[in-house]
Amino acid sequence: MSRVRDVCVVGLGLIGGSVLRAAKAAGRTVWGAAQAEDAAKAEADGFTVLRLDEALERARREDALVVLAVPLPAVPDVLRKVRPGTRLTDVTSVKGPVADAVHRYAPEARFVGGHPMAGTSRSGWDASRADLFQNAAWVVTAEQSDDVLIDVITLAFDAGAHVVPTTPEEHDAAVARISHLPHVLAAVLAAVGADGGPLALALAAGSFGDGTRVAGSRPELVRAMCEGNRDALLGAVDDALGRLGAARGSLASTGGLAKTIDAGHEARLKLINQPERTPLTIDLTSPEAITALHSLGSRGGRIVALNGTTVKAEIS
Amino acid sequence: MSRVRDVCVVGLGLIGGSVLRAAKAAGRTVWGAAQAEDAAKAEADGFTVLRLDEALERARREDALVVLAVPLPAVPDVLRKVRPGTRLTDVTSVKGPVADAVHRYAPEARFVGGHPMAGTSRSGWDASRADLFQNAAWVVTAEQSDDVLIDVITLAFDAGAHVVPTTPEEHDAAVARISHLPHVLAAVLAAVGADGGPLALALAAGSFGDGTRVAGSRPELVRAMCEGNRDALLGAVDDALGRLGAARGSLASTGGLAKTIDAGHEARLKLINQPERTPLTIDLTSPEAITALHSLGSRGGRIVALNGTTVKAEIS
Repeated sequence: MSRVRDVCVVGLGLIGGSVLRAAKAAGRTVWGAAQAEDAAKAEADGFTVLRLDEALERARREDALVVLAVPLPAVPDVLRKVRPGTRLTDVTSVKGPVADAVHRYAPEARFVGGHPMAGTSRSGWDASRADLFQNAAWVVTAEQSDDVLIDVITLAFDAGAHVVPTTPEEHDAAVARISHLPHVLAAVLAAVGADGGPLALALAAGSFGDGTRVAGSRPELVRAMCEGNRDALLGAVDDALGRLGAARGSLASTGGLAKTIDAGHEARLKLINQPERTPLTIDLTSPEAITALHSLGSRGGRIVALNGTTVKAEIS
Repeated sequence: MSRVRDVCVVGLGLIGGSVLRAAKAAGRTVWGAAQAEDAAKAEADGFTVLRLDEALERARREDALVVLAVPLPAVPDVLRKVRPGTRLTDVTSVKGPVADAVHRYAPEARFVGGHPMAGTSRSGWDASRADLFQNAAWVVTAEQSDDVLIDVITLAFDAGAHVVPTTPEEHDAAVARISHLPHVLAAVLAAVGADGGPLALALAAGSFGDGTRVAGSRPELVRAMCEGNRDALLGAVDDALGRLGAARGSLASTGGLAKTIDAGHEARLKLINQPERTPLTIDLTSPEAITALHSLGSRGGRIVALNGTTVKAEIS
């Protein structure tokens, strides 16, 4: 039920541009649509860029996979123009709000959500690279196991990524903790450091540089990403406030930080020493396929290959 | 009033070992004292290592500069053995508590505090390197301008560092913000991420990796450093709690994070785009020398060269 499908990318910034480049590098027929500046640069680099209507019409006509790569606030306007029956995925950093928008504005599209976990502090077409997703995790949120799911998995593999299947809710809760909270804490740390005046900045070395690095990202993109995941991020911020408040209390009352520092060290070791993985397979034609995929993702597993309708996976 | 002076280093872990190596590489006569494991390794690498009493006695006899490089809890025991009149500095990460300990346990030593802002997540003699302090800031806290101050400045230059003069209080407040708070926030972030379970860790990418890197440091060293600067760190943690709480409130009430993210971005730009520096000189024999040095440090300036009793400095 799979074939190598043409790809239409809407939005040609860092992520969309990199998807377009990676799909072309993998031998796909590709075209895009974008706002004026990125469109002109992509055309100058030899890519086909059409008006949005034309790009979506051609995608429906040729049964291509449409990749939605615009910022979250622009998603509804694009979705309204997607033709019924279109194969559709996205690369947006939140999955619940996008799934809601698809149900509302393009209910007849054949949608599977996606989120490649890659990025740099740069943005726009100029920052895009065909190899941006090499060895990255590409999250896929499917509600049913069908050929569009296979299309998205195949695209992720073509880009050099592995696939992590999960639900929109679990994705959004996880990225709140490991992607959005880090941006909020980096901003807080940078501001507290700068409040220390010129002496503090003159003494800043490795730990402050590491801890504030992502505060250098474009503020409007960081805000859009964090604010778009408001509910899950609130939970993560509350956890951080609770842990930081407990550290404060312990330091003030006993002078000790053992619990905070030891828990952080143990967690960091978990991150860098992830256990060995064992292989398993999932038959995508099985009625249990979606349940098996979601379970795989929840347990930290990943899809590493596709053989017909059977995925090869790894789990710790 | 200056000459190239012999150097005795007490404590031969990462920092003390690197001071010993750097001073020897600069052509100084050097010897050390250390606990058994580091002592044996330093001797095996061709360095002179004496018993603590012998090392301190030789230092007083030869008018050498003693560099205190033991962890803060071990400082009083060493200070009790320092001979009256000894030229003394330290490389500990807090300056107020060390100055207090010197006043109490070695009031007749000729003391100038120091803190080279360098380190790695590794520790012990094995991790020490002669070039650890190249291009680093070496904080110096002097209460008077004398030849011991010149000894310490000269040692910092021999190690490839520049010198930032300040007071113990200003140093401790600054490092709470740019060195100790980053460790606490990294620990909090790592724990909140790990609380998200295997999926969260499987999706962790650049921002989480950067933000938790220093949580990989040895917990007992991080605790000793942070707990040793308790008063100043409490202030920095309170500032972080205030800013994080404000972000939480804004996200919950309006859905917006503009103030938090924009302030963090502006602070990060201040860090990476420090303004151009203009040169100035300070005459160390002037009665205003200490005031001028402290003002230089408060304003983010640094000493970059020494010519007799005149320091060449730079300020933004």
